[in-house]
Amino acid sequence: MADSFHIVEGELWVEDHSITYIGAASKKASHLAEHIVWDREIDACKNLLMPGFKNAHTHSGMTFLRSYADDLPLLDWLKYQVFPMEAKLKPEYIYDFSKLAIMEYLTSGITANFDMYLSPEPIAKASVDCGFRTVIVGAMNNFTQSVEEMEEYYNTYNHYHQLISYQLGFHAEYTTNRERLEGVASLAKKYKAPVYTHNSESKSEVQGCIERYGMTPTAFLNSLGMFEYGGGGYHCIHMTDEDMNIFKEHGMSVVTNPGSNVKLASGIAPLAAMQQMGINIAIGTDGPASNNCLDMFREMFLATGLQKLSLMDASAMDGNDVLYMATVGGAKAMCLNTCDTLEVDKAADIIMLDLNQPNMRPIHNITKNIVYSGSKQNVKMTMVNGKILYEDGKFDIGTEPAALYERIESIVNEMKK
Amino acid sequence: MADSFHIVEGELWVEDHSITYIGAASKKASHLAEHIVWDREIDACKNLLMPGFKNAHTHSGMTFLRSYADDLPLLDWLKYQVFPMEAKLKPEYIYDFSKLAIMEYLTSGITANFDMYLSPEPIAKASVDCGFRTVIVGAMNNFTQSVEEMEEYYNTYNHYHQLISYQLGFHAEYTTNRERLEGVASLAKKYKAPVYTHNSESKSEVQGCIERYGMTPTAFLNSLGMFEYGGGGYHCIHMTDEDMNIFKEHGMSVVTNPGSNVKLASGIAPLAAMQQMGINIAIGTDGPASNNCLDMFREMFLATGLQKLSLMDASAMDGNDVLYMATVGGAKAMCLNTCDTLEVDKAADIIMLDLNQPNMRPIHNITKNIVYSGSKQNVKMTMVNGKILYEDGKFDIGTEPAALYERIESIVNEMKK
Repeated sequence: MADSFHIVEGELWVEDHSITYIGAASKKASHLAEHIVWDREIDACKNLLMPGFKNAHTHSGMTFLRSYADDLPLLDWLKYQVFPMEAKLKPEYIYDFSKLAIMEYLTSGITANFDMYLSPEPIAKASVDCGFRTVIVGAMNNFTQSVEEMEEYYNTYNHYHQLISYQLGFHAEYTTNRERLEGVASLAKKYKAPVYTHNSESKSEVQGCIERYGMTPTAFLNSLGMFEYGGGGYHCIHMTDEDMNIFKEHGMSVVTNPGSNVKLASGIAPLAAMQQMGINIAIGTDGPASNNCLDMFREMFLATGLQKLSLMDASAMDGNDVLYMATVGGAKAMCLNTCDTLEVDKAADIIMLDLNQPNMRPIHNITKNIVYSGSKQNVKMTMVNGKILYEDGKFDIGTEPAALYERIESIVNEMKK
Repeated sequence: MADSFHIVEGELWVEDHSITYIGAASKKASHLAEHIVWDREIDACKNLLMPGFKNAHTHSGMTFLRSYADDLPLLDWLKYQVFPMEAKLKPEYIYDFSKLAIMEYLTSGITANFDMYLSPEPIAKASVDCGFRTVIVGAMNNFTQSVEEMEEYYNTYNHYHQLISYQLGFHAEYTTNRERLEGVASLAKKYKAPVYTHNSESKSEVQGCIERYGMTPTAFLNSLGMFEYGGGGYHCIHMTDEDMNIFKEHGMSVVTNPGSNVKLASGIAPLAAMQQMGINIAIGTDGPASNNCLDMFREMFLATGLQKLSLMDASAMDGNDVLYMATVGGAKAMCLNTCDTLEVDKAADIIMLDLNQPNMRPIHNITKNIVYSGSKQNVKMTMVNGKILYEDGKFDIGTEPAALYERIESIVNEMKK
């Protein structure tokens, strides 16, 4: 993995939605370029172009709960703060809240998200209207969405817009009864599709599943045939060797969410062990109610730092591998096979990182600088599908930020009443 | 502590180096203002002015080692990477390297640092030339600096410039012999001065001291009379109850460095217990070779997050208390008594945070937004001692960033030969 990064000096061309040339500003390139009428030529000033980060687990619509109630015990927070506020949600609110999250993703160089929240339509609409790429995942539990609805969503949102796709999923084993889970497994078989869910985030969740079914969540869900076509788990903290073997055997992805796991005191996922087994690992911010920051730089630092800390080994989890997780690993987990790297014919999901900032100097090692010192402040440009949505602090997402902030404050004040 | 933050709408005036008015843009204020010829009036656009962060432990001159050798076991890193490169240092290099660190502090809203590195002169000169505030701390060990030199430094750098002060200190118990330590304790008594050192950063350090002297580092140093006039410890991870009692009794400060402690796998300082005892806590980034980022936002998140994680309690270490540590707690540890809060007659060490960014919305709770979601990208302005040194991404520090970057790359390339 660590060897998969190499840095090229030269030009990168984008036409429509794709990368069409990477290489030296050579004669051949100049010759080809003669036939193209360029909209814009950007001098990158020796800054770095790289594939956008993939936020492989989030709940964008939850921005309204950011810092609404921090520093509370987990269950109090959910029961008395999150659930009563969520009960007041309307789809049009989710649309605006998701847009706010997309803005933050752009500031952090994130070009795609894997989004689980109550209704798919406002999520899809917010992304398309902003020009952002989103993989929506089923959010079914005993109270929200049904197997039939999920099938309908699967067919609708996989043919909705080139920026949108949909994957089967449900909230978690502990919030979804056996009948519904069997329904999801049937869909997985019918569509030969992967399935995603929150998995082993807390000890009590694992314990509860063992009491109900005599198996860990991973083993139980696997016993239903849930992962015949792969899929993945969000969090994956309290995992047994057998659980990890199931992930490995089925080519499943672990999506780690270290910021949220720290803030909610959930624990540290055994990423180093998973990586050693060859399991694909992706990184997500989780939602803004629990993290609260939608910042891939923070997550990357934590993804390596918490391994070092828990294994008491400063050499654990190389920074290069973490950068791989945040880009290629994420794209793989999200089935975004054309958005993973900078290559000709790949989607133009590209960011420019400002290396002319004190935190990026000196340049001994660019990837380590990104993982260990990088910050949102280094994101000079975020392009999704060939369109620049964020550049030098300005957004081009079809909405004025100030108007969106104002609308959100007024919605939130209404909800608090 | 949590109650000590309150937010005022109105105006803040700075004259020369101090704050001269905070309050409503009232008639009285307007009347007073008539007699003043303002250099500049800034519309804060409903953004937040707050006291600058205090970086209470760092080694600024080590920027040259940032990402030179990450992801190595601790001792290999020190022996084969850090020490051989440090052997090639010259004072003029430390000057440039310190300036690079100062630039990064400014981008993170840090207005003062507590700096321990090889030679005081280039550190002091870099800070004065940039207009930055620095408390230099003695860096004595068996090979660098002597007790006599430290006394000379103490007298020199406490009368050098209003931006510079000097505190007694040494590298650590395990690198400094008893005779030298007794010398420092004598200076502490002579000058009625506090003393600072790295303390209980690793288990082996504590074990070594117990083997040498039958006491923990804190107890042993205290037995020499080292802390008669207070002082503090950097890191303070592996602390006994007795150690913490000594800190409490002597009014000493703990300076926590969670980013470095994570990356070097050192452990988690028991901040919640220390706080409960009423020990003053400050936050430092540690040096750029070990962290590698000089970013108070990352440190604040970790200061609370690691407590939550280690105590398995999402309610541990309230975000408001962490913001206090990063500002008032730091100023207290560094004896910067006029730089701690925004009040009339206090030093104008002020930052402006951009609340008109997606990660600061909605505004349920500004302090929690800063601690949990804040990033360098939110720092719109950093003022030290009444002068704006950083604003909207531009530096005013008497050096062109591009020239400094170039000089540093060339020094570093020379050193690597």
